[in-house]
Amino acid sequence: MISKRGFASDNNAGVHPEILRELARVNSGHVIGYGSDIYTEEAKRLFKEKLGTDTETYFVFTGTAANVLGISGVTRSWNSIITAATAHLQQDECGAPEKFTGCKVLTVDTPDGKIDPEMVEKYMYGFDFEHHSQPGVISVSQSTEMGTVYSVQEIIRLADYAHSKGLLLHMDGARLANSAVSLDLPFKAFTTDAGVDLLSFGGTKNGMMGAEAVCFLRKGLSPDFKYIRKQGMHLASKMRFIAAQYIAYFRDDLWKRCASHANEMARILAGRLNEIKQISITQKVQSNGIFVIMPAHVAEKVMKQYFFYSWNEKRSEYRLMTSWDTTEEDINDFILALKNAIGRN
Amino acid sequence: MISKRGFASDNNAGVHPEILRELARVNSGHVIGYGSDIYTEEAKRLFKEKLGTDTETYFVFTGTAANVLGISGVTRSWNSIITAATAHLQQDECGAPEKFTGCKVLTVDTPDGKIDPEMVEKYMYGFDFEHHSQPGVISVSQSTEMGTVYSVQEIIRLADYAHSKGLLLHMDGARLANSAVSLDLPFKAFTTDAGVDLLSFGGTKNGMMGAEAVCFLRKGLSPDFKYIRKQGMHLASKMRFIAAQYIAYFRDDLWKRCASHANEMARILAGRLNEIKQISITQKVQSNGIFVIMPAHVAEKVMKQYFFYSWNEKRSEYRLMTSWDTTEEDINDFILALKNAIGRN
Amino acid sequence: MISKRGFASDNNAGVHPEILRELARVNSGHVIGYGSDIYTEEAKRLFKEKLGTDTETYFVFTGTAANVLGISGVTRSWNSIITAATAHLQQDECGAPEKFTGCKVLTVDTPDGKIDPEMVEKYMYGFDFEHHSQPGVISVSQSTEMGTVYSVQEIIRLADYAHSKGLLLHMDGARLANSAVSLDLPFKAFTTDAGVDLLSFGGTKNGMMGAEAVCFLRKGLSPDFKYIRKQGMHLASKMRFIAAQYIAYFRDDLWKRCASHANEMARILAGRLNEIKQISITQKVQSNGIFVIMPAHVAEKVMKQYFFYSWNEKRSEYRLMTSWDTTEEDINDFILALKNAIGRN
Amino acid sequence: MISKRGFASDNNAGVHPEILRELARVNSGHVIGYGSDIYTEEAKRLFKEKLGTDTETYFVFTGTAANVLGISGVTRSWNSIITAATAHLQQDECGAPEKFTGCKVLTVDTPDGKIDPEMVEKYMYGFDFEHHSQPGVISVSQSTEMGTVYSVQEIIRLADYAHSKGLLLHMDGARLANSAVSLDLPFKAFTTDAGVDLLSFGGTKNGMMGAEAVCFLRKGLSPDFKYIRKQGMHLASKMRFIAAQYIAYFRDDLWKRCASHANEMARILAGRLNEIKQISITQKVQSNGIFVIMPAHVAEKVMKQYFFYSWNEKRSEYRLMTSWDTTEEDINDFILALKNAIGRN
Repeated sequence: MISKRGFASDNNAGVHPEILRELARVNSGHVIGYGSDIYTEEAKRLFKEKLGTDTETYFVFTGTAANVLGISGVTRSWNSIITAATAHLQQDECGAPEKFTGCKVLTVDTPDGKIDPEMVEKYMYGFDFEHHSQPGVISVSQSTEMGTVYSVQEIIRLADYAHSKGLLLHMDGARLANSAVSLDLPFKAFTTDAGVDLLSFGGTKNGMMGAEAVCFLRKGLSPDFKYIRKQGMHLASKMRFIAAQYIAYFRDDLWKRCASHANEMARILAGRLNEIKQISITQKVQSNGIFVIMPAHVAEKVMKQYFFYSWNEKRSEYRLMTSWDTTEEDINDFILALKNAIGRN
Repeated sequence: MISKRGFASDNNAGVHPEILRELARVNSGHVIGYGSDIYTEEAKRLFKEKLGTDTETYFVFTGTAANVLGISGVTRSWNSIITAATAHLQQDECGAPEKFTGCKVLTVDTPDGKIDPEMVEKYMYGFDFEHHSQPGVISVSQSTEMGTVYSVQEIIRLADYAHSKGLLLHMDGARLANSAVSLDLPFKAFTTDAGVDLLSFGGTKNGMMGAEAVCFLRKGLSPDFKYIRKQGMHLASKMRFIAAQYIAYFRDDLWKRCASHANEMARILAGRLNEIKQISITQKVQSNGIFVIMPAHVAEKVMKQYFFYSWNEKRSEYRLMTSWDTTEEDINDFILALKNAIGRN
Repeated sequence: MISKRGFASDNNAGVHPEILRELARVNSGHVIGYGSDIYTEEAKRLFKEKLGTDTETYFVFTGTAANVLGISGVTRSWNSIITAATAHLQQDECGAPEKFTGCKVLTVDTPDGKIDPEMVEKYMYGFDFEHHSQPGVISVSQSTEMGTVYSVQEIIRLADYAHSKGLLLHMDGARLANSAVSLDLPFKAFTTDAGVDLLSFGGTKNGMMGAEAVCFLRKGLSPDFKYIRKQGMHLASKMRFIAAQYIAYFRDDLWKRCASHANEMARILAGRLNEIKQISITQKVQSNGIFVIMPAHVAEKVMKQYFFYSWNEKRSEYRLMTSWDTTEEDINDFILALKNAIGRN
Repeated sequence: MISKRGFASDNNAGVHPEILRELARVNSGHVIGYGSDIYTEEAKRLFKEKLGTDTETYFVFTGTAANVLGISGVTRSWNSIITAATAHLQQDECGAPEKFTGCKVLTVDTPDGKIDPEMVEKYMYGFDFEHHSQPGVISVSQSTEMGTVYSVQEIIRLADYAHSKGLLLHMDGARLANSAVSLDLPFKAFTTDAGVDLLSFGGTKNGMMGAEAVCFLRKGLSPDFKYIRKQGMHLASKMRFIAAQYIAYFRDDLWKRCASHANEMARILAGRLNEIKQISITQKVQSNGIFVIMPAHVAEKVMKQYFFYSWNEKRSEYRLMTSWDTTEEDINDFILALKNAIGRN
């Protein structure tokens, strides 16, 4: 196994040096565990600064936990969660939402990972009917699992729609920074201000070691959440080392530097892929994910050097991800490998 | 809030420098996420070395998760889990065992945190009777929440007893290293070799940043555990940074250096406390926890400088913990603070 | 509220006199509770007679419980259940499958309530991939919620397909008798012999008071199911009164007499509806359910006399159900009411 | 297997003829399912009459479901439920409370099945501490599993205590009628008026076929309970046949006639047992349960004719239950059998 940088996933990348340095910086003396420490306090203050003063933030370890525990905080087991068929919630959490929340997950098919009120509408029935799981939450991913990004206007529409039906809007922001950069907007503009109610604010995929945050953006949304997190097995004892990652992440806009770089690398990689006639890009490249169709034998050859994931075997579609540490040289090498694989046939 | 070292908990301490260095060391290039990397492979190999070749190890983030997910791996929801009334499982996991496993937790009262077959026997009935939760697992903490340590012989007795009834023996080893040092034995001697079936092998309380391991010590105990961990929201994407902590922990016996020091500090602190006639020690000091009865007003005064936890308000009993970074000077200062508080009356 | 017979649902009908008589018959003296009685023994023997000698039968109170507990008996929480979007499991159980089994429910759209391997195939991926709920069970309703009936060949195809992928086939037989009559086949021919693995064998909708059976059709499918039923809160103390209903149901083919009548009434009602040009039937009438599109104002008027359910508000589609006690006079009256409502415009 | 009347359990008895007649009476025509019928309405009105106008009643099928679903309606998964170690909730529900509510069940030892504030007090800590399951409900059985009955004053004390700590008081009234008769009080006097918040109001053990009721005795206690019952798989489709049982039960005080008889038979049986010097009664006989110590070989012999349950094997303690249909002749025969078994040694 090599530790060469590739395009398999942004979570294959390591930790940004500024994050590591911060871990060392807070590693001094004793502080009370489980979040009653100055670093956690500071990190939570930063979230209020970024997302609004009503924001209540709870740190957890994984993106799955952020999604599942957060949604659990605003639902009861007889609710349903409506999301894209491609959502992490649906595809990649091994049923954790069902197991932990007890809720039904309802999905809508979408060509680009994005959903809109028209798609969701088919599930808007059965209210107050005890036989039927009560629609409770709409969940969107920003950026989506297909690399696309919701515009502010699209989020506002969904939020207004959700609220008009008595539902809440959850945003899975495992790659929130990539979206902020793509939209060229502060986080608040397309979350709190756009009507998002609760947010999984991820960091691991953008240079952190392992830290995710559940952010309730309105007052009183989940007053008992501390019990949910603890019972959900995600209360960190040495919390300062989670908090510290966010402190560094927000300092000097590290998040923006990392995500801008990753997005820019995706733009460049997409440009280079576009030049290869055997390869076609299937989704808009709006963040750091690129979806391509290429001949399977080409993919297989290149994968031996650069592991990446098959997305849709039938369509011979593959996913490529750039990350905060991707270099232009990495892209050059990868393109070369692709061309060699194509040429060798 | 000060970051002075105190005696509130071993998880108030920071991270050992060798652990931090290892995190930096593995932070190079890309590796596949979720545990398919050389560091995770190496860490798992080390566990086989320490605990036996049949050991299957899965990393998680918290001790609660290690206990709950591990036990979930060997039970069905209609089982019961028998443990000490003082166990972390019972007192400090906010019902996570019940919520996640669905099992009933049955407790036995014990003066020192340790249980034996005679205590457990009262629950050995109702087998095959569908109305009754089926006894499935006995869980012991090593070292216990009261700072005491099971002897090898005591564990063998419990394991034999459990097995004779068709139950498994789980060990909550959040402070396993402190026990190993106390017993002056390798881990294997009082776990695998003594009949323990599954083990929560903790590290966070002994100098790590945040890493715990679920270890199945017999072949085939939990073949589907990978799904349980993922659905349990504890599959780390950047797994190498969990694995790395264990690699460093086992290198040059860091675990032993840390735990020996903590235990030794506890011994010294206990000695000093014994000299104060207003204070009495209530449990054997066998690892790094010390339980004392002292006048409440004394405790309150000292707590302002050195936060520590009340254990039993009625008895005016308090818990003190030493850690890998406790210094003799810390002890001197603390004893002085105690004496001042006593003298000032 | 009137107790006039209508076409709202077969569960709006009462209990067949032979069932009531049997309840009185077994009401003599004491028998041991929870199923250790001669009536339960006899009823279970009858199931073996009807479905094959490997059949293990457990009685429960509701169809939802039969589906959910039965499937729980053959799955683990990280499995997924694949079913039609119209299935009772998905639409009408308020998330009980998710809450109790922890499984993910995946749905396929189908025009007539029936699914086939081609529809299911899109979910056949992610095997052995821990991020993904593992496909575990395909569930079909026989007859379907749309009143249609699977042929034996269709069931065999699905069962073979399921087995070839390592999945099991569950059949929700809330209206199994109506299907048997429709197919003119013994139960076994389109369940056990066709490859169905587990079966919810309903009776309540066909003249019983309240009794459903979970039938495992292969040896060893769910050896611990007695605990699942008890923990699932569906172990009847006075079990003989559940068992007795099935004894009467099978005696002199009461089930067939009831279901034949209901199906025949549906056929007649459909014929009469076909004569009304403002009404169109949208599904094949193969059992006792009839789906019709009619002008909303007509439906509303008739509903005041004869309550029935709107199925699809947008399409102005309604569901009519006949039952074991429907009379031709009921049909005449209902048709008259419809015609009056149409004429009055 | 014989259907001779015995003393194994009151649920071994059959159904009172007036209940059966009522089932036949309501079996006329069609009524809407799931509780929107005049019989259910009437039964719910009767509960308001008996327990107070704020009472909200929901019918379910089993006592386990009444306890578990009811408590689920007023708790969240991070709560704990405090009850006697002998409680049905703890001993005989196979972990259903834990599995369905997610709550921790805490038990207190009690010599006679009754608990008081002094016993419960040891669990009154950890409030607001997220590591600890939050005490939520105290649950008492009336009459208890040991045949004893709480006085009104004892219930008031517990209710006041519970409320002073922010907890609710649940009463498992599987044998509520036996208590009412024992206390010679209307139901309301020792439930609603004594401070009980929610009540499992059983009927099956006192002459019904199978019907239990969850009664919320205060306004707004569980506004979403209809979803909990449905998701809990206990919404009856042919609800009228559950409701009818309660209608008959309350008519002409059938409940009182049945329970008075059972209690009286217990008094007589106890008197006769007292005359046998090899047998000693271990609990006050206040309802229809009698606990006796007798030589094991005697019990074994008699059990062949009259099955009854061993309660505590070590103490050679057995439970005898009388029921609504016990006759004095049954008692005579049973005493004779006992004497023969003793004499034959």
